[in-house]
Amino acid sequence: MIAIQLDPLQFDITALRAEYERALAEIVEIPTVSMDPAHRHDMRRGAEWARQLFEAHGGEATIHETAGFPVVVGNFRHAEAKRTLTVYNHLDVQPANESEWTTDPFRFTCEGDTYRGRGTTDDKGPALAAFFAAMLARKQGLPLNIRFVWEFEEEIGSPNFEAFLQAHADELATDSVLVSDTIWISRDKPAAPLGLRGMLSFRLLLETGTKDVHSGLTGGAARNPIGELCQLISEIYDARTGDVLIPGFYDHVRPLTTEAKESFLASGFETREFQRAHGLTCLRVTDPLEVTTRIWALPTFEVHGMVGGYTGPGVKAIVPPRAEAKVSMRLVPDMKPADVLAMVQAFVSARNSDVVLEADGALEPYMGALEGPYSEAVRMALRFGFGADAAFIREGGSIGAVVSMQKHLNCPIMFIGLSLPEHGYHAPNENFDWGMAAGGMKAFMHYFENVAAL
Amino acid sequence: MIAIQLDPLQFDITALRAEYERALAEIVEIPTVSMDPAHRHDMRRGAEWARQLFEAHGGEATIHETAGFPVVVGNFRHAEAKRTLTVYNHLDVQPANESEWTTDPFRFTCEGDTYRGRGTTDDKGPALAAFFAAMLARKQGLPLNIRFVWEFEEEIGSPNFEAFLQAHADELATDSVLVSDTIWISRDKPAAPLGLRGMLSFRLLLETGTKDVHSGLTGGAARNPIGELCQLISEIYDARTGDVLIPGFYDHVRPLTTEAKESFLASGFETREFQRAHGLTCLRVTDPLEVTTRIWALPTFEVHGMVGGYTGPGVKAIVPPRAEAKVSMRLVPDMKPADVLAMVQAFVSARNSDVVLEADGALEPYMGALEGPYSEAVRMALRFGFGADAAFIREGGSIGAVVSMQKHLNCPIMFIGLSLPEHGYHAPNENFDWGMAAGGMKAFMHYFENVAAL
Repeated sequence: MIAIQLDPLQFDITALRAEYERALAEIVEIPTVSMDPAHRHDMRRGAEWARQLFEAHGGEATIHETAGFPVVVGNFRHAEAKRTLTVYNHLDVQPANESEWTTDPFRFTCEGDTYRGRGTTDDKGPALAAFFAAMLARKQGLPLNIRFVWEFEEEIGSPNFEAFLQAHADELATDSVLVSDTIWISRDKPAAPLGLRGMLSFRLLLETGTKDVHSGLTGGAARNPIGELCQLISEIYDARTGDVLIPGFYDHVRPLTTEAKESFLASGFETREFQRAHGLTCLRVTDPLEVTTRIWALPTFEVHGMVGGYTGPGVKAIVPPRAEAKVSMRLVPDMKPADVLAMVQAFVSARNSDVVLEADGALEPYMGALEGPYSEAVRMALRFGFGADAAFIREGGSIGAVVSMQKHLNCPIMFIGLSLPEHGYHAPNENFDWGMAAGGMKAFMHYFENVAAL
Repeated sequence: MIAIQLDPLQFDITALRAEYERALAEIVEIPTVSMDPAHRHDMRRGAEWARQLFEAHGGEATIHETAGFPVVVGNFRHAEAKRTLTVYNHLDVQPANESEWTTDPFRFTCEGDTYRGRGTTDDKGPALAAFFAAMLARKQGLPLNIRFVWEFEEEIGSPNFEAFLQAHADELATDSVLVSDTIWISRDKPAAPLGLRGMLSFRLLLETGTKDVHSGLTGGAARNPIGELCQLISEIYDARTGDVLIPGFYDHVRPLTTEAKESFLASGFETREFQRAHGLTCLRVTDPLEVTTRIWALPTFEVHGMVGGYTGPGVKAIVPPRAEAKVSMRLVPDMKPADVLAMVQAFVSARNSDVVLEADGALEPYMGALEGPYSEAVRMALRFGFGADAAFIREGGSIGAVVSMQKHLNCPIMFIGLSLPEHGYHAPNENFDWGMAAGGMKAFMHYFENVAAL
């Protein structure tokens, strides 16, 4: 591999700042909340915006329809390119509870170097950093076909992405994929994940009546669906330790190698900083190896919310007619979502046969390779962009699209993410910053150059 | 005791119907929701309305201020009366979730004999039945001082009622009390309770962070406050059986006598009808004696709602920073609320020392006497009003004011309730009907006559 030394003067990233911010502001202010049917129209607006962005910058773009929201594919082709690189991002975002934000989540604000708004870091800001890096590469005449695949259903588990890949297999053929949707451990230490956790989302529903009833008149004989779901959840897992109690749940968890443990410890992970960044006042464990192992390499069970009953001021003495627990599990290699779901369903039925399990989505865990020229290019790109050596860690989150691309594009998949813990992924006051955007553009540019030279 | 045979022609209850309905419509349309601070102004409007009602009908009335909402005391005095009878009702109501109603909960509707609206059966309808019966007694010149005590904080556990009784002890001195705020078992069988369950309301709060965090990035290490509250709740009670698991919880429960069991069975209670009336599709037990024992004579633990986390469409993969479980316990003789609270607090602290217990109210259980002239008057009044013999049962609900009156007024307390299971106490589509109002007026009138003759 030839490591091309780029002359920073050849492209002035700073000169791109205004254009980058204008584009980011435009797309942040289109509330592409894939989870909420009320935003159906905004999804379409977001895709149109993306298509026009490619066309305005000399590329070609197609809005591909799916059974759900579309996928936008943008191409910058070079006549002499020997290779095609595909960059994957997503332009849909998490919902935002405005009352928890200090600013309107769907108004872009810029204060100094900080950009605030839903989607700034996940994943609109990184998507545009890669886009503008490709603009620079194009201006320089870099002999590489750069293709962007921008999904609009990542936050709901990419339910139609695999069918999209299958339907457009020829058109999407590529030599490698670069995914930009992951998070560093700390601002000083670039991090590239080797593996992702999988996920299994479902809801547990129990209905025992048709209306709220008075707990004095019926309490003792009436079944309480919230209470029974609490009991079932406490049978599924020990919330204090996090241990899942379903027999056999851990049978297929791949043991952590000594090498992996060492790389976790070398990542710069600090428990205190992790807590601070996520605003966690206490944790189940504090030892850095234990924490990283739990968030990167072990499966989980999580309750996200409980619907049903009275939630207003004070206490209202009713027994509700129904309740729903919103839950998910994170999975690690070599767990199979379908097998885990069957295991959970059997456990739930055995413990409370009236509880209905409604599956909401499944993602397989992913493990990549540390060796090879693409890994080397990631290492060099991150060093060039940010002046520090990258740590190869794992990602606790899940990107369903990665698993689908591995299956259907059959090529190396690498990761250059630009998000930081303090950016508030999926959280109120989500933000991004020019420092990560600018370093990211340098890193992407360097990566493109190295890949073109392979 | 002299049982006076009233001549139905002396008073035409039917002629009162229009006036009764007009008054009920007026007070139902004042949303006196004591639990919701947003209705503070309506509480005042409700009290003013009550004062004017007494004055418009030749009585005297005073709005007594308390540390919370006022108590309205209305008097109809008779110069030759030897005795004073105090009738207790409450004019505050439960909140209403409009989306669960077929009509606006705070618009009075009348369809045939059915009155619909929040408070129609609990307790505005029965209060006005007693009021108009007193009007009839007054028109007949019955030598009895009839006093009404209308509270506005019953639905929040009467936090200021005891202080009110203490502050106005002389003025409130009475020979007996009649409470009209209880429910029959079925329309064909008048029921009068001998005992009431007590209550202990509290909220369990756990805070482990400051904001929603991504369950992929933090899940495994982050504590989940909803999960931990589920676990704690499942340690406090077995939701499937209803058994409270706190050691010693049942130690002071008075065993049920054979006589009490027989009276429960003779009450006309039918499990199927109980389920139908409350819209309960399934129960923990179905044997009538088991059901009645559980709802009348055994303590309970109940979860009314769980606040925290994501409750919108689908599943949002976050770990919430805090959660709150709204819970209560029903207590029976001879349990002491303060002792039970201390027991629960100790148990909670031992199981999860980070959980904060916020107590919201406590009511002692109550047991009255089956013997004596007042009990006999209740029996006769119900037979006169409804043409059937009354069953002396227990009430699964709690009326804090009863316990306070027993302590401070030091006189017999009797119960003539007019609500039916199908009236939807505390539930959506609460209703009342003219049949119960008219029979109630007859029964109250007969009770007044018999008490005057004592």
